[in-house]
Amino acid sequence: MTSRSMPGTDLAATIVKATAERAAEFERLTGTKPCLATVIVGDDPASVTYVKMKRNRCAKAGITSRHVPLPEETTTEQLVAAVRELSEDPSVHGILLQHPVPAHIDERAAFEAIAPGKDVDGVTMHSFAAMSFGEPGFASCTPGGIMRLLEDYGVEPSGKHAVVIGRSPILGKPAAMLLLAKDATVTVCHSRTRDLPSIVRTADIVVAAVGKPEFVKGDWIKPGAVVIDAGYNEGNVGDVAYAEALPHASLITPVPGGVGPTTIALLLEQTVTAAFAAS
Amino acid sequence: MTSRSMPGTDLAATIVKATAERAAEFERLTGTKPCLATVIVGDDPASVTYVKMKRNRCAKAGITSRHVPLPEETTTEQLVAAVRELSEDPSVHGILLQHPVPAHIDERAAFEAIAPGKDVDGVTMHSFAAMSFGEPGFASCTPGGIMRLLEDYGVEPSGKHAVVIGRSPILGKPAAMLLLAKDATVTVCHSRTRDLPSIVRTADIVVAAVGKPEFVKGDWIKPGAVVIDAGYNEGNVGDVAYAEALPHASLITPVPGGVGPTTIALLLEQTVTAAFAAS
Repeated sequence: MTSRSMPGTDLAATIVKATAERAAEFERLTGTKPCLATVIVGDDPASVTYVKMKRNRCAKAGITSRHVPLPEETTTEQLVAAVRELSEDPSVHGILLQHPVPAHIDERAAFEAIAPGKDVDGVTMHSFAAMSFGEPGFASCTPGGIMRLLEDYGVEPSGKHAVVIGRSPILGKPAAMLLLAKDATVTVCHSRTRDLPSIVRTADIVVAAVGKPEFVKGDWIKPGAVVIDAGYNEGNVGDVAYAEALPHASLITPVPGGVGPTTIALLLEQTVTAAFAAS
Repeated sequence: MTSRSMPGTDLAATIVKATAERAAEFERLTGTKPCLATVIVGDDPASVTYVKMKRNRCAKAGITSRHVPLPEETTTEQLVAAVRELSEDPSVHGILLQHPVPAHIDERAAFEAIAPGKDVDGVTMHSFAAMSFGEPGFASCTPGGIMRLLEDYGVEPSGKHAVVIGRSPILGKPAAMLLLAKDATVTVCHSRTRDLPSIVRTADIVVAAVGKPEFVKGDWIKPGAVVIDAGYNEGNVGDVAYAEALPHASLITPVPGGVGPTTIALLLEQTVTAAFAAS
């Protein structure tokens, strides 16, 4: 068996290039660029950096972004009102509400203020159900990026056992649903799971989405498994002990340069799709 | 180890009794009974029987039902319009669209015409996402009934491995999500799953929702597992080979008299809850 690193950079570049062409086409047809509204509450440094990076990528792809920074003390009502305004604004095509929001805010209420047609980050209940039922809608960007990555590397989920570690509404759960839609047998594990290593050892595809550095150990990986590390922790470390896992896996995403670039590429792609759908 | 049958009849009777009391209270407060609209398209004998039974149970619990039978040749547009009218009618508190609908109809479109506040059968995308995310909303009645049954028999899903066989939008998927919400480690299996018996053998809780008579064999059941048979096939046969499985299981639902009665009880309970919420 040969082990291979599974970077997402080339795939992301391909998606971004095609997206930039579609954005230019949109501008040619309508006289305006696709527009992504980015909403951030407070000034958490990591969130500020993420949003800045996303806006830079938008600009490079010919997508305008409208930045809406709100103070830390913003209430749920104020945030919902701000998001709703963007939902109703025809010059905005997609809305990204950077999470996490401060703890005093009802994040779900804020997400639900995003119109389904502008939910290019795939965070609403509607988008989740659409992913789950194979109905039209936007994918959560990281799970959507993971599925594209699997496809790009010729990994066919059908009949495989996929183990998703993590059950967040924007990562673990939608990843599980998208893998299920591709006919994988899917197990969702989490903090209450007993004997996680032995469950992971049965996986043909592992998706690590826990947010704990090097949480998944090398000897948990079945020989030949495909390992998708959706974690990103301080110090450029993923949720999988990469060096340990590499010799066991047939394919394994590096951190950084694995899932991350495809996540942003999906965000841009879906923004342009939303713009065309609205026009 | 002792094996026990796990009927749902007592639990259902308890739920129906409490529901009838709440329905009477609703009538006392508002001067009208809670009202469930039942919509059926065509005259499939099994569906006709189901709807008749549900309406009879409603009547016994002090819930009015408004029956809307539509001809086999009803179009998606006509069905959506009929359901939407019920969604907008303040005298209707809950809506049940009996499925399956004829193949020429877009069932999802029809389900989505049910207002979330009247989705007492838990079939809309909103209800599914609400179950998945622990947000307020109605449960799909069979999965909701299964969770109540587990609770009633003192089965604590947390940390257990639950294997759900079947992935339909109103049974397998919501059952998986509700078990996950109760901290079970959940595996969803289906027709493409490889070596299903060996996966089921790892389950502490098995939910069979395949719609194939006696599909799950006795020797697939781990000693002491809890077996929930959500199937109902011709000739009063479930999805599990009951007699074979009984000696292996610690608890196993019979068919009939297991999951079925709790499903209808949940429908009545949620109808009265919807009536109170709307008043």
